[in-house]
Amino acid sequence: MRVSNLLVPTLREVPAEAEVISHQLLLRAGFMRKAAAGVYTLLPLAWRVILKIERIIREEMDRQGGQEIMMPIIQPAELWQESGRWDVYGPELFRFKDRHGRDFCLGPTHEEIITTLVKGEINSYKQLPLLLYQIQNKYRDERRPRFGLMRGREFIMKDLYSFDRDEAGLDASYNKMYEAYTNVFRRCGLQFRPVVADSGAIGGSDTHEFMVLAESGEATVLYCADEKCGYAANQERAEAVHSLASNIDVPGELQKVSTPGCRSVSEVTEYLNVPPEKVIKTVIYTTDKENVAVMIRGDREINEIKLYNVLGCVRLDLADEQTVRGVTGAPVGYAGPVGLNGVKLVADSEVMSLVNAVCGANEKEQHLVNVNPQRDTKPDLITDIRLVKAGEPCPQCGAELLEAKGIEVGQVFKLGTKYSKALGGTFLDESGKARPFVMGCYGIGVTRTMAAAVEQNYDERGIIWPVQIAPYHVIVVPVSSKDQNLMQAAETIYNDLNDAGVETVIDDRPERAGVKFNDADLVGYPLRVTVGSKGLANGQVELYMRRNGETVLVPQDDVVNAVKTKLRDIG
Amino acid sequence: MRVSNLLVPTLREVPAEAEVISHQLLLRAGFMRKAAAGVYTLLPLAWRVILKIERIIREEMDRQGGQEIMMPIIQPAELWQESGRWDVYGPELFRFKDRHGRDFCLGPTHEEIITTLVKGEINSYKQLPLLLYQIQNKYRDERRPRFGLMRGREFIMKDLYSFDRDEAGLDASYNKMYEAYTNVFRRCGLQFRPVVADSGAIGGSDTHEFMVLAESGEATVLYCADEKCGYAANQERAEAVHSLASNIDVPGELQKVSTPGCRSVSEVTEYLNVPPEKVIKTVIYTTDKENVAVMIRGDREINEIKLYNVLGCVRLDLADEQTVRGVTGAPVGYAGPVGLNGVKLVADSEVMSLVNAVCGANEKEQHLVNVNPQRDTKPDLITDIRLVKAGEPCPQCGAELLEAKGIEVGQVFKLGTKYSKALGGTFLDESGKARPFVMGCYGIGVTRTMAAAVEQNYDERGIIWPVQIAPYHVIVVPVSSKDQNLMQAAETIYNDLNDAGVETVIDDRPERAGVKFNDADLVGYPLRVTVGSKGLANGQVELYMRRNGETVLVPQDDVVNAVKTKLRDIG
Repeated sequence: MRVSNLLVPTLREVPAEAEVISHQLLLRAGFMRKAAAGVYTLLPLAWRVILKIERIIREEMDRQGGQEIMMPIIQPAELWQESGRWDVYGPELFRFKDRHGRDFCLGPTHEEIITTLVKGEINSYKQLPLLLYQIQNKYRDERRPRFGLMRGREFIMKDLYSFDRDEAGLDASYNKMYEAYTNVFRRCGLQFRPVVADSGAIGGSDTHEFMVLAESGEATVLYCADEKCGYAANQERAEAVHSLASNIDVPGELQKVSTPGCRSVSEVTEYLNVPPEKVIKTVIYTTDKENVAVMIRGDREINEIKLYNVLGCVRLDLADEQTVRGVTGAPVGYAGPVGLNGVKLVADSEVMSLVNAVCGANEKEQHLVNVNPQRDTKPDLITDIRLVKAGEPCPQCGAELLEAKGIEVGQVFKLGTKYSKALGGTFLDESGKARPFVMGCYGIGVTRTMAAAVEQNYDERGIIWPVQIAPYHVIVVPVSSKDQNLMQAAETIYNDLNDAGVETVIDDRPERAGVKFNDADLVGYPLRVTVGSKGLANGQVELYMRRNGETVLVPQDDVVNAVKTKLRDIG
Repeated sequence: MRVSNLLVPTLREVPAEAEVISHQLLLRAGFMRKAAAGVYTLLPLAWRVILKIERIIREEMDRQGGQEIMMPIIQPAELWQESGRWDVYGPELFRFKDRHGRDFCLGPTHEEIITTLVKGEINSYKQLPLLLYQIQNKYRDERRPRFGLMRGREFIMKDLYSFDRDEAGLDASYNKMYEAYTNVFRRCGLQFRPVVADSGAIGGSDTHEFMVLAESGEATVLYCADEKCGYAANQERAEAVHSLASNIDVPGELQKVSTPGCRSVSEVTEYLNVPPEKVIKTVIYTTDKENVAVMIRGDREINEIKLYNVLGCVRLDLADEQTVRGVTGAPVGYAGPVGLNGVKLVADSEVMSLVNAVCGANEKEQHLVNVNPQRDTKPDLITDIRLVKAGEPCPQCGAELLEAKGIEVGQVFKLGTKYSKALGGTFLDESGKARPFVMGCYGIGVTRTMAAAVEQNYDERGIIWPVQIAPYHVIVVPVSSKDQNLMQAAETIYNDLNDAGVETVIDDRPERAGVKFNDADLVGYPLRVTVGSKGLANGQVELYMRRNGETVLVPQDDVVNAVKTKLRDIG
């Protein structure tokens, strides 16, 4: 393809709307344009990247026995009503009526459709396992779509659903997908990490997220410093290791002390001269069901995802001042677990082993000392609700946890029988008994993977595509478009490379060399072949590696081999 | 792939809902299932066919310089309001609001989006021509979706849009697409014909439809018996050749005659003993603008598409009895063009050359004889509004026109500047003057092409896939699943064929041979390899050609070569 014909409208300026790097660069490098908030047109270069990612996904799904199908994007409401999700899904579900007034939605996911399909077609355990997938546009009416392809309202997903006869079957399917996902992201040339993830309020089910590592990632990944251990988890989900305090103190007598103006943990520790790990922080929340008081060590943070899951609530908010006053009888800053009534008290496991700690007295400017939670408090629930941080011990081996930022590009999830039970999806087992399918679901964000690849691979000059998913491998740049000999040499190289199966474009525009170099760097072709008159005089052209800026002169008549070798090296 | 794992749920019964062959067979052979009216899930075999068609399309679009992109399915209303189509599109457009109350639609086509995109990115004639395409779901809320994939509400289309600087450029782009479409349908292994089609009320622009020939086709194609001529048109559009009557009669004096009970042409011809081609039939229509009387020879039919186009109306209906009475002053059956006032009179060109013809007198049971239209009528419009039929002369060469039934699977269309003008899409020409893009649009119904392939290729036992788009090329059928030697021989052949790049399934189910044969015929694998104990004893297996039922014994150890040769022969 000739750059003069290719629709790759590069921009000099960073578009004001774009907050994150991938959004900026995909706009600037001419990969996409906005059609509406959170809705994009993918231009030719982006679409080539997407097709490559899709092809890798397809091969890895098929290798595990996946069968590709295509389900509808428009889904009748009846199925969603049957599963109970029509009413709970909320405003993120695009809903509409057809000309006869029947309700439909644009599918954000396809559990209802696929379960209903499989229920109708599969009768016997002999037909299981069944792995069905599709690659398709999905829809989510985000309140505030942003970050370009990272959080759009229309995006491409691969979604696979597994149907098994029992938990052991589900485990096997899950492991197959775990392996397939590992292969997909490796073959895309990305640095990534599968991490234990939060399975939500359902609880109990396994789930892993696949995180592309990038500094700009919204998610925090904690992983074990010991590579042999291999533990890695989304911070939302990472299990706390309960470090027992060395209880050499003898429990003292509970006493109330005056703490004028001391509301925060740091104010209290300074005033009373105690370390923060001896303070009990008490935070009041409201949920759709009740008020909740949470006690945790003063040097720790509450993991609200964990809290949300153990409470099984729909809504979880920090209590406002009025509620705090109602619950504790005191202004904000003096809440404490001792003698607190009419509120659900949740204790982080760790806090329970404190001896002679400090906490608020539920009175203005008063704290309690010599608090011994085992003796002085009556929590309704004692569990792990603590946010784990880098530097803490690995829950698997005790080594140090390290931290990285990641972008979630895939998730594998054991659904169990949630949908098969709701929608009546059963099969007959060996004894002729009807049993619900044991299901799993497995998603890859295809457009998001492209954006994550950019977040992980760029510099100040533009994108640096991994060879495996680069829109083209090579750009041939003749440094002058006026020199006929030079243009002809460039054309020959361009044709030879394409004939040899190397995906190559030629920048045949009548632009200055600097403009061409800048555009090539911005677009991120892995390799540039620069054809200049000085080199040609010696029968040479220059190979330039986008990632490290390295250049090397190669004989003009050996350029195909040289390019192929380089691509193999960096691919 | 093993049939025991493959989701290909064949049905013994013809589903009651399915009216046409492709709908019946695609359901029965386990290629698809309905999710809602006009909305289908495509199962693994169907999806393989679709991917093959898409691949062929992609290669042919790219060969002509097309660049693949992906535009959004959800489109903001603003663009449609700007083009003026939001208000005129009617109930076939699926409309909805996002969470902020903004209007959107599901794209039935993408002229608005692409024109707006190109307008923003292309400034100069130097960047033209530009051919952009996508392969994507499209939406049309049909009042009565039916015929399965032939007229669904959600379907896959390839749509390409061309942007040129002038009409000559458009001609070139149009010709490229005409060639590409010819290649696509040829490579899909289909019998087809490009025909001159109706360009609608816009008029003037060229358009061709690509018709897959099939007896069940809804469209009638008229084509010249002389292959060298090559004329072919949709009957809706076929030009009438004006056969001049041999005017040896001397015009007689207009006379009114009594015709008791003679309302129809046949009654009049019998009663007055005149041939139908001497009768002037007058038909009254109502439109959104006016009443219209149409005069045509008694042996001819009115082509309402032609009439609709020349009238430039939105609605065209046969007048009801009351309107006929109001216009003619007589009951239905006695309308005539002589002395008819207060109505637009449209004459088919042919009728004007009649001499001493017969027509209704606008009085009950009265007709006029010796009617000479040139002398006795004053049409507002004389033009070709006649439905051409097989047997009439070719408008290009005069040879006989033959008739075939066809299914429209593609259309190429010269849009001109309709959308670029409406949406302000301009570029600067050589002299720096802003000029509107000259556009074309070109569609292929991808899902419809699959259905049309079935309509053209089936027999009483099931589908007969053209090799080029068959979901798999070969099915290996061991006639007994209990005989271990036989199963092992079948497995070896299955593996050898797949290793040799032949897409092969094995029917490893513990079913009777008859069941397997019936399913294989129903699904339509082009080639079946039957592995039986009798043949194996002689080191032979049987090849069975689905299309002609031919069987041939081949040596067991030469099966790969034999299969490859056969596939080449029938492909």
